[in-house]
Amino acid sequence: MSDKPISRYPIPDLQHMPEDMRSRILAVQEKSGFVPNVFLALAHRPDEFRAFFAYHDALMEKESGLSKAEREMIVVATSGANQCHYCVVAHGAILRVRARDPRVADQVAINYRKADITPRQKAMLDFALKVSLAAHEIGEEDFAVLHAAGFSDEDIWDIGAVAAFFALSNRMANMVDMRPNDEFYLMGRLPREK
Amino acid sequence: MSDKPISRYPIPDLQHMPEDMRSRILAVQEKSGFVPNVFLALAHRPDEFRAFFAYHDALMEKESGLSKAEREMIVVATSGANQCHYCVVAHGAILRVRARDPRVADQVAINYRKADITPRQKAMLDFALKVSLAAHEIGEEDFAVLHAAGFSDEDIWDIGAVAAFFALSNRMANMVDMRPNDEFYLMGRLPREK
Amino acid sequence: MSDKPISRYPIPDLQHMPEDMRSRILAVQEKSGFVPNVFLALAHRPDEFRAFFAYHDALMEKESGLSKAEREMIVVATSGANQCHYCVVAHGAILRVRARDPRVADQVAINYRKADITPRQKAMLDFALKVSLAAHEIGEEDFAVLHAAGFSDEDIWDIGAVAAFFALSNRMANMVDMRPNDEFYLMGRLPREK
Amino acid sequence: MSDKPISRYPIPDLQHMPEDMRSRILAVQEKSGFVPNVFLALAHRPDEFRAFFAYHDALMEKESGLSKAEREMIVVATSGANQCHYCVVAHGAILRVRARDPRVADQVAINYRKADITPRQKAMLDFALKVSLAAHEIGEEDFAVLHAAGFSDEDIWDIGAVAAFFALSNRMANMVDMRPNDEFYLMGRLPREK
Amino acid sequence: MSDKPISRYPIPDLQHMPEDMRSRILAVQEKSGFVPNVFLALAHRPDEFRAFFAYHDALMEKESGLSKAEREMIVVATSGANQCHYCVVAHGAILRVRARDPRVADQVAINYRKADITPRQKAMLDFALKVSLAAHEIGEEDFAVLHAAGFSDEDIWDIGAVAAFFALSNRMANMVDMRPNDEFYLMGRLPREK
Amino acid sequence: MSDKPISRYPIPDLQHMPEDMRSRILAVQEKSGFVPNVFLALAHRPDEFRAFFAYHDALMEKESGLSKAEREMIVVATSGANQCHYCVVAHGAILRVRARDPRVADQVAINYRKADITPRQKAMLDFALKVSLAAHEIGEEDFAVLHAAGFSDEDIWDIGAVAAFFALSNRMANMVDMRPNDEFYLMGRLPREK
Repeated sequence: MSDKPISRYPIPDLQHMPEDMRSRILAVQEKSGFVPNVFLALAHRPDEFRAFFAYHDALMEKESGLSKAEREMIVVATSGANQCHYCVVAHGAILRVRARDPRVADQVAINYRKADITPRQKAMLDFALKVSLAAHEIGEEDFAVLHAAGFSDEDIWDIGAVAAFFALSNRMANMVDMRPNDEFYLMGRLPREK
Repeated sequence: MSDKPISRYPIPDLQHMPEDMRSRILAVQEKSGFVPNVFLALAHRPDEFRAFFAYHDALMEKESGLSKAEREMIVVATSGANQCHYCVVAHGAILRVRARDPRVADQVAINYRKADITPRQKAMLDFALKVSLAAHEIGEEDFAVLHAAGFSDEDIWDIGAVAAFFALSNRMANMVDMRPNDEFYLMGRLPREK
Repeated sequence: MSDKPISRYPIPDLQHMPEDMRSRILAVQEKSGFVPNVFLALAHRPDEFRAFFAYHDALMEKESGLSKAEREMIVVATSGANQCHYCVVAHGAILRVRARDPRVADQVAINYRKADITPRQKAMLDFALKVSLAAHEIGEEDFAVLHAAGFSDEDIWDIGAVAAFFALSNRMANMVDMRPNDEFYLMGRLPREK
Repeated sequence: MSDKPISRYPIPDLQHMPEDMRSRILAVQEKSGFVPNVFLALAHRPDEFRAFFAYHDALMEKESGLSKAEREMIVVATSGANQCHYCVVAHGAILRVRARDPRVADQVAINYRKADITPRQKAMLDFALKVSLAAHEIGEEDFAVLHAAGFSDEDIWDIGAVAAFFALSNRMANMVDMRPNDEFYLMGRLPREK
Repeated sequence: MSDKPISRYPIPDLQHMPEDMRSRILAVQEKSGFVPNVFLALAHRPDEFRAFFAYHDALMEKESGLSKAEREMIVVATSGANQCHYCVVAHGAILRVRARDPRVADQVAINYRKADITPRQKAMLDFALKVSLAAHEIGEEDFAVLHAAGFSDEDIWDIGAVAAFFALSNRMANMVDMRPNDEFYLMGRLPREK
Repeated sequence: MSDKPISRYPIPDLQHMPEDMRSRILAVQEKSGFVPNVFLALAHRPDEFRAFFAYHDALMEKESGLSKAEREMIVVATSGANQCHYCVVAHGAILRVRARDPRVADQVAINYRKADITPRQKAMLDFALKVSLAAHEIGEEDFAVLHAAGFSDEDIWDIGAVAAFFALSNRMANMVDMRPNDEFYLMGRLPREK
């Protein structure tokens, strides 16, 4: 394990965190086998921590016309455009796991136009990148393209909201110099044992 | 009152909203005299609504080394850079009220370098804009400049977190075509009656 | 009234200005109730002053297929893109007065794509912004779009010439740090008394 | 001589122009041996023509701390950045003549950082390009650099005003598709006969 | 193995290639266990193939003040900036192997400012990115920074030449839609067996 | 002749160069009447010199669906966009000679959209500039446009490969501060003697 700091800011001790935060963190640790550093770095500010993960879950865990893997594609593509080290590495891992594909995360992070994705997913990422990089130029014509690709208005909200939420997340991670856990780099790259 | 839609998406009926949302909205209406459209537009998605305002309050209502007016300056300056109609107009109004200054909001929205603000506030906005537009380039030298301007590490988190939160907010408002209430345009521009 | 300087450069005394400049300035003072700072700031260079206002009047005061309010929209939208404090505030006021609309100036300055304007005006501003930001890319296809929106070739010259003139004006104002008069901020925001 | 149109817009007949414009054009023809196309293209709008050339002469013909060749350097460098065909070719010719240097115009148009100019001229062009491309970022530190390079405040106005005027001129030329005279291409490239 | 095409252009048959190309390809296959697709995609143009790999070897295989891993860092960082799928994936693998580090390639591709590299390597990549993205702005001050970081003039040539060569390579790969071999994704990520 | 250095790096003595390099240089001198500085500047690194000119010749001297003048247009247009002093001046000269046109090089260097070229050449340069400035966005639609303009897939490779090679060349020239020979400035500008 690396001994580099995981944030510019102090990391609170798990034992002295408020109970709701500690139990959330212990739950993710139980599920993943380790505590992703974003939980520790953001725990420095409990109220922001709670709102951040409530927002995250409202977008990423709910039922949607987008699969969970597709939502992670949006995260990885926009985080690549924003050069966010933590988000590309951590969500790249989650994308590999959710898509059961060891290559798509790297492809989407580097240049989604060249990735092994469907035309529908290409249209989804075109819009997500526009939300991320030029939201002020969004207009009716963008909605028309997405409707033609089979997305409903609710799906479009989901695409845009995930891109918008990670616009926040990428900036926080870059500001506090958040470091991804070493575990993420290899996750989802090897064939699953049976 | 304008009859233009306030969002591309449906606006739920206040009477049928969950109780926590309705009471939050009624409270703001009581305080402001009207319901800012962001509450209605985001109510389309209750879980996101709750997380959004929890996050907002965690940053904007708490004790901080930054005054509330300074936090609104960050909102207005970054929203101007992101060309967010709703956020510049609505938070411009709040900034005028909080700073008791009828001109600073327009100045900060157009070009904060020319605004009637202190050198400390200029340094604050330099950093906020960097978080908004080029967070991947943030480094130790940015923290050093802010420390020299008298900001603590916690203040810097506040600056960056407000800029990051409105990176999200600007993108949502631009995506759903959120329309500011007519009331905001004039608010804080006239001398207070005594 | 603010005691901030209105320009980095010296402001000549009205009494000692050449007669043609003084009478021009007194005329605008009589009409507006105050002397807009651009007249004082540019008076530092009499020959440039004369050419500047002759150019201004040739474009802004003449008969045109564009209404005076539409020409001010071009000024406000391009000055917003160029982050010109003086021009957005001063011409925003003139636009509010000419359009008899208290909100359109803020809308156009922030993001004209979201403003309460006609499709024809949207096409006009698309072209004005292209002249302002990427004139080297203008081609036949831009003229075709404007013709389809109902503009004649002479109208198109007007759109482009106003955008080009304020490309000059914005740069001068930013260079000399020109400060808008306090009066402009509120002008045109209140219903007219009858 | 080329038979390509010199402007998208009609060119008025010299014989039917107002007398002041005709005599100005005949004077330049007498001096140069031909009529530069900018005079013909802008004659389509007499009032704008008069203001344009009055402004031009106020900046380019007057006494200044900048030599005429230095002022043409500013024109060529900023017109190169704005990709203005007419202005680079026509003012490149004038620069070659005024500087008595057959190479400096091409150098300054392509990349002034690599041109055979003095450090003082390099500082002058740094500022001119900032006025041309990012005037909203100009601040005290830019004036300090120019003062250190030996420029007075009046010289700095000249630098900025020339850059600002050609911001207008470049946009007009690109909009109307102004074509430089064939004569300009070779002017000043050959050693003078004695 | 994927059945996606590895280039928009035809891939020549190894058996019918000129002898020098075939033996070069067989040598790399023997060493790596597979033929990297760049050899097959560029073999469509034998003369360009020969010049490309001669140039590559002249830069990447020679003695240098930069280690081979450092040269691969330059490739990965600039290819990330240029969004080149092939080059990031393939040279990311080579970097992991040469640096014996399973994480550095992803870090450098996403945002080298946050990577686990030395200050000297950070200075090296600052310059490489400037060569890649804004070579026209390079000046004496860049050389001074690199000298201060311990680089000789010959080292600086190496940094810039590697960045310049991959400016070519990235563009070719993006133009022909070059696909990285599946083998590269995992290479260098697992601890070496002993 | 100028006494300015032609490169930041040492220039080897022609007499002590390896025989293949010396004979190549003497051949070009015989043909052109002088030694273009790129040969001397790159001779500092013999292996890179050999690969560079082998690549150059593979693209620029071979049979192609593009004329040699058209290939030089690509060089001049992309080198203008990259602000490469050496490449614009030297290849501008070659373009004038090859196209037997004294004006096209300046036109293409400044703004190819306004140049006296055919629609087919305009399409060619649109693609060349995209390869130069945004190769990661190239897609099927770009190939379709070029096919419609009459280019084969092999022609398209030629366009892109020339643009890619000069992406390298422009960066090397800017890095080493390569100076064009004085002879290039006038070459091809005068009518040929008969």
